[in-house]
Amino acid sequence: MKVAFQGEHGAYSEQAIFEYFGKDVETIPCESFDALFDAVASKNGEAGFAPIENSLAGSIHQNYDLLLRHNLHIVGEYFLRVRHCLITLPDVKKEEIKKAISHPQALGQCANYLRNLGIKPESVYDTAGSVKMLKESGARDTAAIASKRAAELYGMQIVEEGIEDNTENFTRFLCLGTESIVPKEEAKTSIVFTLKNQPGALYKALSVFALRDIDLTKIESRPLQGKPWEYLFYIDFIGSTHDEICKKALENLGEYALMLRVLGSYPRFK
Amino acid sequence: MKVAFQGEHGAYSEQAIFEYFGKDVETIPCESFDALFDAVASKNGEAGFAPIENSLAGSIHQNYDLLLRHNLHIVGEYFLRVRHCLITLPDVKKEEIKKAISHPQALGQCANYLRNLGIKPESVYDTAGSVKMLKESGARDTAAIASKRAAELYGMQIVEEGIEDNTENFTRFLCLGTESIVPKEEAKTSIVFTLKNQPGALYKALSVFALRDIDLTKIESRPLQGKPWEYLFYIDFIGSTHDEICKKALENLGEYALMLRVLGSYPRFK
Repeated sequence: MKVAFQGEHGAYSEQAIFEYFGKDVETIPCESFDALFDAVASKNGEAGFAPIENSLAGSIHQNYDLLLRHNLHIVGEYFLRVRHCLITLPDVKKEEIKKAISHPQALGQCANYLRNLGIKPESVYDTAGSVKMLKESGARDTAAIASKRAAELYGMQIVEEGIEDNTENFTRFLCLGTESIVPKEEAKTSIVFTLKNQPGALYKALSVFALRDIDLTKIESRPLQGKPWEYLFYIDFIGSTHDEICKKALENLGEYALMLRVLGSYPRFK
Repeated sequence: MKVAFQGEHGAYSEQAIFEYFGKDVETIPCESFDALFDAVASKNGEAGFAPIENSLAGSIHQNYDLLLRHNLHIVGEYFLRVRHCLITLPDVKKEEIKKAISHPQALGQCANYLRNLGIKPESVYDTAGSVKMLKESGARDTAAIASKRAAELYGMQIVEEGIEDNTENFTRFLCLGTESIVPKEEAKTSIVFTLKNQPGALYKALSVFALRDIDLTKIESRPLQGKPWEYLFYIDFIGSTHDEICKKALENLGEYALMLRVLGSYPRFK
């Protein structure tokens, strides 16, 4: 089993893959989210793992846009608890640290922690990459903020674990494949659609779910390219396209949606 | 009249201010969006101008979050047509350019143009800042991508204007103040609210507008901090809180919203 992810070895995405598939999976690092989607589409990887939303920072819109541009299927989801570590060269003491490097989002999620210690944040492109950079630089006054796995991979010291300001820090990942699946357990379904730009359009669209007591778990809007201030809507709901009631709801939505695509039905993560 | 904006002199935000208020306004550059909101709140500026959405790239979520954290009022909106310029030192020829520096979003919006000319994009923190950096470096093989105004301000050459791949490139700005206003012309209103996490909740919320034929122009969801996978909803609709029908709709929404705040009623931009 091969699974592609964005980032360097030691990335949170890679950790999510191991937690989801177990330790026997082969992970394929990709430079960008574009490269990740391309890898899955070209079957270089058998599957791909893409973050779609963080419980503090919100949606990763680039991946919503990539779902639309590619013809892949969502075949699973996973919620990773993000625990940031303060990582240094071996034997560095906490008091020696003057600067912390990491991805801006990770730095932002540890802002209070760093402020209290008088450590200055400095943005770099990647969390796991910051550990690699730190090892190469040999700087003793600098810490990286990344996953436990990244520290272990590069033989670095974990000064402190769980340094994020808010512990309710989860990232939802989507597992992507080239074929759709029929989920056996409780399912979630993701769809994308566009509507005529007229009063009440979204209300009518939501009625096909509400009037059937189908539970929406997420709604996201993205700009429709070339049509300023018109939108694509992405919706996740509980149920599978193989359930009669959800099938009816989507048929009903299809009556007034200008475009409607099912991105996948997959086992709901609990 | 003083108006604060994020970025360096020559930023698109500054251009939007001059187009909205005329040439006699004094502009106050701020280092970050946080600093911009603080400047307005502390009355360092009399008003502030913050981008909230681009027609290609989507919402600027940081500013949605800042609207919630601050107690400011939206008092106006403006749609700026974004026209990117290829900017060099004087007398540089197009063929000499090997590299283009700008904010990643501007580079992304000119990706095809740059690819066709074989110019390599390189990210820097700011569009107007890239012109300043280029001037200081004196590099003849490098171009900056920024506004016409930025080129003029730094005495640089515009090699080509309107190099964006998609001409439907607009940014919507919000004008922020410390006091609410009563719009005299056709108005738009922005609100933010939270709902009980139960099936049909959003559908019911939208019904207060749909059943009164109130036209929604935008819906945006943002994560509720500390409650993973629950959301804040931001909605813009046509009408003013001083219209009887909109007042009723908001009263009705208030019956089941857990939190509801009006961010402002302001003249609709046409």
